[in-house]
Amino acid sequence: MSAKETLHIIKVGGNIIDDDAKLARFLKDFAALEGRKILVHGGGKLATRMAEELKLPQQMVNGRRVTDADTLRIVTMVYAGQINKNIVASLQAQGCTALGLTGADGDAIRSHRRVKGEIDYGFVGDVDAVNAALVSGLLEQGLSIVMAPITHDGKGQLLNTNADTIAQELATGLSQRYRTVLLYSFEKSGVLLDVNDEASVIPLITPARYRDLLAGEKIFAGMIPKLDNAFRALESGVDRVLIGQAEDLPALVSGRSGTALSLQD
Amino acid sequence: MSAKETLHIIKVGGNIIDDDAKLARFLKDFAALEGRKILVHGGGKLATRMAEELKLPQQMVNGRRVTDADTLRIVTMVYAGQINKNIVASLQAQGCTALGLTGADGDAIRSHRRVKGEIDYGFVGDVDAVNAALVSGLLEQGLSIVMAPITHDGKGQLLNTNADTIAQELATGLSQRYRTVLLYSFEKSGVLLDVNDEASVIPLITPARYRDLLAGEKIFAGMIPKLDNAFRALESGVDRVLIGQAEDLPALVSGRSGTALSLQD
Repeated sequence: MSAKETLHIIKVGGNIIDDDAKLARFLKDFAALEGRKILVHGGGKLATRMAEELKLPQQMVNGRRVTDADTLRIVTMVYAGQINKNIVASLQAQGCTALGLTGADGDAIRSHRRVKGEIDYGFVGDVDAVNAALVSGLLEQGLSIVMAPITHDGKGQLLNTNADTIAQELATGLSQRYRTVLLYSFEKSGVLLDVNDEASVIPLITPARYRDLLAGEKIFAGMIPKLDNAFRALESGVDRVLIGQAEDLPALVSGRSGTALSLQD
Repeated sequence: MSAKETLHIIKVGGNIIDDDAKLARFLKDFAALEGRKILVHGGGKLATRMAEELKLPQQMVNGRRVTDADTLRIVTMVYAGQINKNIVASLQAQGCTALGLTGADGDAIRSHRRVKGEIDYGFVGDVDAVNAALVSGLLEQGLSIVMAPITHDGKGQLLNTNADTIAQELATGLSQRYRTVLLYSFEKSGVLLDVNDEASVIPLITPARYRDLLAGEKIFAGMIPKLDNAFRALESGVDRVLIGQAEDLPALVSGRSGTALSLQD
């Protein structure tokens, strides 16, 4: 079997999306990155701001937006329209042949509406399947994909979907065809031992170390779903997971900065 | 040389987009249409309504929206987000593997900001080039393209662009690879001799007949840019142009209804 080509799947966090200068720098670095690549973006505060402009009250539960019909309309407009297309146009200007997608496009990512528990999150999707043939077909056409965090259920319903999860599902779903490297890039330098000290980056986290860190309550609560996702990705065939600063993507991609996750010690 | 495969490029007008029942029927027919196909949609009144919700006054000149920065943001959200993604999700539900694009995606359609004359239309694009390799690559992957009327200038600027023109440019730009059939579908039965009589459809318009109709002031003013576009398309390699009712797409595609344009008598 010939060596697999590397595919970078890079999630960029909301705080970068909200900051024009940081986003421009990140996109310049993304455009310059060699090889096959996918950018997954969140929505940042733009959707919240749009809801305020439209005077539509937003309900958040456990840090997640409850997506009623009006909110779905807003996130579809802001994520798939405003943010996605401006990112694509900026990447084109840098010579990167980017193509923006939602999960509905080409049936790229299919999901189902989250089953109601104690909380009804509304039009929120949990991912069922990534269309690896479609996505790799686009990548092999020389396109870099820019994915908005919207999926569909195959029955005509769009669904608001967590961008971290989308990145992990893409990395997993494409791991048979590519050596997939999953990067969670955001405003922090990596997974920190002390959330107030950017120099306290943990360079490597293995499952054993993760258990220790969790037991010692050393992990910032907001980071736990990201790490859970990351370990699930490694267990499902993803080659590497890296977590770190979006503002210096080359350092993160090369392993010179950030936190690496590995199943082996 | 082997016979070219047929590609249908179908523009659907704003009044259909604004009517859920008519749009659903149109999309069902579009999904059922055999072979390679592209849907180009306008924006209808949704962008105007969104501007009203946001209390942003809109300026129209000669039936065209003046696109300031706020308006560009709105049309990007509404056309490329809300309308495009809902159409794509609906087509997927009908078994049509649709993929939504703007001209920025994959550098599909490049334009330049319209040169200021007496009127500054703002962020409005006049088309320079269609990326036929990109578009045909997607079509050959089995994808049906849904194009929103937004293009880019290659320098990072999105531009609001007339959907009729986009349809014509796609039909022309792809005419070397495909036998392209360009359809302008809307709420009318075709080009009418009497604008108040749906039974007065002119079945065939040649250049000579067009000159006569114009001289006799028989053509409804709003139809003239469409017809000018259509004849330009035929002169540039498009095989057929058909104008007629979006509500009965099979009849229009087959030539059983509507107006056909031809360079020959």
